Amino acid sequence: MGMTQGAEIICVGTELLLGEILNSNAQFLALELAKLGIPHFFQTVVGDNPVRIKQAIALACQRSSLVIFTGGLGPTPDDLTTEAIADFFETPLLEDPIVWAEIEQKYTARGLVPSPSNRKQALRPRGAATLPNATGTAPGIIWEPRPGLTLMTFPGVPRELYAMWAETVIPFLQQQGWGEAQIYSRNLRFIGIPESTLAEKVAPFLLQESPTVAPYASHGEARLRLSVRSTSQPDADQLLDPVEQQIQALCGLDYYGKDDDTLATVVGRLLTQRGETLSVAESCTGGGLGQKLTDIPGSSAYFWGGVIAYDNRVKLQLLNVDAATLETQGAVSAIVAEQMAIGIKTLLGTTWSLSITGIAGPGGGTADKPVGLVYLGLAEPNGVVTHQKCLIGSGRGRDWVRDVSASQALDLLRRQLLNQRELKQKV
Amino acid sequence: MGMTQGAEIICVGTELLLGEILNSNAQFLALELAKLGIPHFFQTVVGDNPVRIKQAIALACQRSSLVIFTGGLGPTPDDLTTEAIADFFETPLLEDPIVWAEIEQKYTARGLVPSPSNRKQALRPRGAATLPNATGTAPGIIWEPRPGLTLMTFPGVPRELYAMWAETVIPFLQQQGWGEAQIYSRNLRFIGIPESTLAEKVAPFLLQESPTVAPYASHGEARLRLSVRSTSQPDADQLLDPVEQQIQALCGLDYYGKDDDTLATVVGRLLTQRGETLSVAESCTGGGLGQKLTDIPGSSAYFWGGVIAYDNRVKLQLLNVDAATLETQGAVSAIVAEQMAIGIKTLLGTTWSLSITGIAGPGGGTADKPVGLVYLGLAEPNGVVTHQKCLIGSGRGRDWVRDVSASQALDLLRRQLLNQRELKQKV
Repeated sequence: MGMTQGAEIICVGTELLLGEILNSNAQFLALELAKLGIPHFFQTVVGDNPVRIKQAIALACQRSSLVIFTGGLGPTPDDLTTEAIADFFETPLLEDPIVWAEIEQKYTARGLVPSPSNRKQALRPRGAATLPNATGTAPGIIWEPRPGLTLMTFPGVPRELYAMWAETVIPFLQQQGWGEAQIYSRNLRFIGIPESTLAEKVAPFLLQESPTVAPYASHGEARLRLSVRSTSQPDADQLLDPVEQQIQALCGLDYYGKDDDTLATVVGRLLTQRGETLSVAESCTGGGLGQKLTDIPGSSAYFWGGVIAYDNRVKLQLLNVDAATLETQGAVSAIVAEQMAIGIKTLLGTTWSLSITGIAGPGGGTADKPVGLVYLGLAEPNGVVTHQKCLIGSGRGRDWVRDVSASQALDLLRRQLLNQRELKQKV
Repeated sequence: MGMTQGAEIICVGTELLLGEILNSNAQFLALELAKLGIPHFFQTVVGDNPVRIKQAIALACQRSSLVIFTGGLGPTPDDLTTEAIADFFETPLLEDPIVWAEIEQKYTARGLVPSPSNRKQALRPRGAATLPNATGTAPGIIWEPRPGLTLMTFPGVPRELYAMWAETVIPFLQQQGWGEAQIYSRNLRFIGIPESTLAEKVAPFLLQESPTVAPYASHGEARLRLSVRSTSQPDADQLLDPVEQQIQALCGLDYYGKDDDTLATVVGRLLTQRGETLSVAESCTGGGLGQKLTDIPGSSAYFWGGVIAYDNRVKLQLLNVDAATLETQGAVSAIVAEQMAIGIKTLLGTTWSLSITGIAGPGGGTADKPVGLVYLGLAEPNGVVTHQKCLIGSGRGRDWVRDVSASQALDLLRRQLLNQRELKQKV
């Protein structure tokens, strides 16, 4: 595809013009185009208005060779993207019987009946091919209305866009010769070290030109993105591997994984290797730690479950926390965290257990025990029970305190599993 | 300001086209324009390229009466917004001595010396006024290059944009008569009804001009946005209230709340009103239902906690699920869901309990019990225990199945709480 003019993105949706949603689709597409090396010069946002959508189409088709639409593919009368495209190119809309059968089937599988309005989601301009949408109702189209101009349409739902892009569009564009030299990246993930400290630790790497190393923060973790432009994965790996190894060596246990790794997958891998099991006792996280662990398919191999002890009655009754201790020390205390960990490990008979008790806020804080104070408990297979005090702070709100608490608990277990492995290797 | 054509946003920056940053400035400006009632029809993103910036200016000045630029005001050679504007209108750039003095002073105050390149940040087209920037180096401009057309420029740094907007632009626009009438919106939230069915049910409302009613889907729920242009909240309420009431009446229990309501807050409110309590027993959601409930500050008033019974051992041991039933019916069955609900209610002594057992996938599905099959259990205060079978499907992945399961469980309880209230009112 000789893309002399480049790609252009048109995002359709009045909700974007009203500021109701952030245009993350434009960023996703921009990143993907950059990775494939496809030039991209304009983005336009337009509302659910047929005249203005057609204005945007007219302009884009005159200055770009690939026009990517998001939004406006739904079943309601204000979803107008397909209609506007057909209208602009004066091409009739035809119902695709295969698409309609698939829509019907998707509804039936969920015990529902498609409504008549879904029927319009099976319409496509004559000559346009289907861009399958495995995760949502309506597919998009790929269409070359005239030589040298390709149009693609996607639903506005990010999840559906991502899947369609990965499954169909990347292979399609690669077939056209794009993406021979691509940007290959790795994201190294760290915990327990602030972004600024990490940046200082790896300062010399931040100056090098290839691979580039860029620090950033995401979800309370520091990360480093290693990127290199290359024509193949093995070539890229050869350049990325030594940089990654040097950085890992510099950062020790603060480095925990890369790319799709999460603390939960790393902990799961370590437990699986050892054939050991885990249970949890959660107060302020209310199930969030269990949820993080069970995000991982196959986690039932090592995670048995636990107790959500949100109310003190549950701590006393199921976890055998001592009533006098609870009275004198309070539910948010080192000793209660330890008793919770012992309680759940004893109750379920797992190899390890984790506990969390803290003040998530916004209310409930005192001078002694401020919002964001959290105690973690860890009961080990050898009978040792430890705790960790975390001062997460109240500035970023309740969700933040709860999320960081669960991550810190996983990290506590991860470090202990790795320490034990190191000790064993030394013996 | 007679804004017959409306406002347009032009975001300048190659970093946006490379996907390196999310365009949060466009969302901020869109929200602010909506609040002031200024119509806004287009957003354009363009790179640091003088020719393409001028193309965007040409188009915007022809179709809009207020053109708002962000980005491209920095000191480096690729910051081109001011230059492109002056060039397009064939107006000379003059150095503003007051602005230059201020830039020098800002540097001096930080113990720095401005570099020669900062000098270009004091340039403005002849006739343009300064848009002060208290928090950053360079101010923007407000300029009326011809009658009926106003241009404003802002730096790309969000913090600086926000401050300039609040301090100077809002008073300026209000002086011009904007913001007297604003758009007031409500988002009505539904569950258990697909977007397309909802749209058909409320079809006549979708055609009315004021308040406008627009359907959309978000996080697996159908929503309706009611919007009206009005000069005050009470006036807006007077127009929105009857439409909301009619839609509520049409949709019955499928309507569950609006704006900041979630299923968890609605259930929490109903339980609080009745002085009743809740516990949960979770298998495939692994804590996700507890987490949703405890997202709400103050949820400890009615939510006591529960058991994460991810492994069958926990179902048998803590929830007293019958071993023979588990063997013959399997963990994902109506009877086990009911036994889990009874088990946790008995164990903790709460008024109500919910249970979830299902196949989240991606593995573990069979022909009889496919991925996405989930059973919910509900134990009521009167001793009645019921279940609900959900076919969530596998197409949208594991996270989706887990998230929808937890929402469906909350909805099951919500409907029963409301049914009981209705029965009581009838008695």
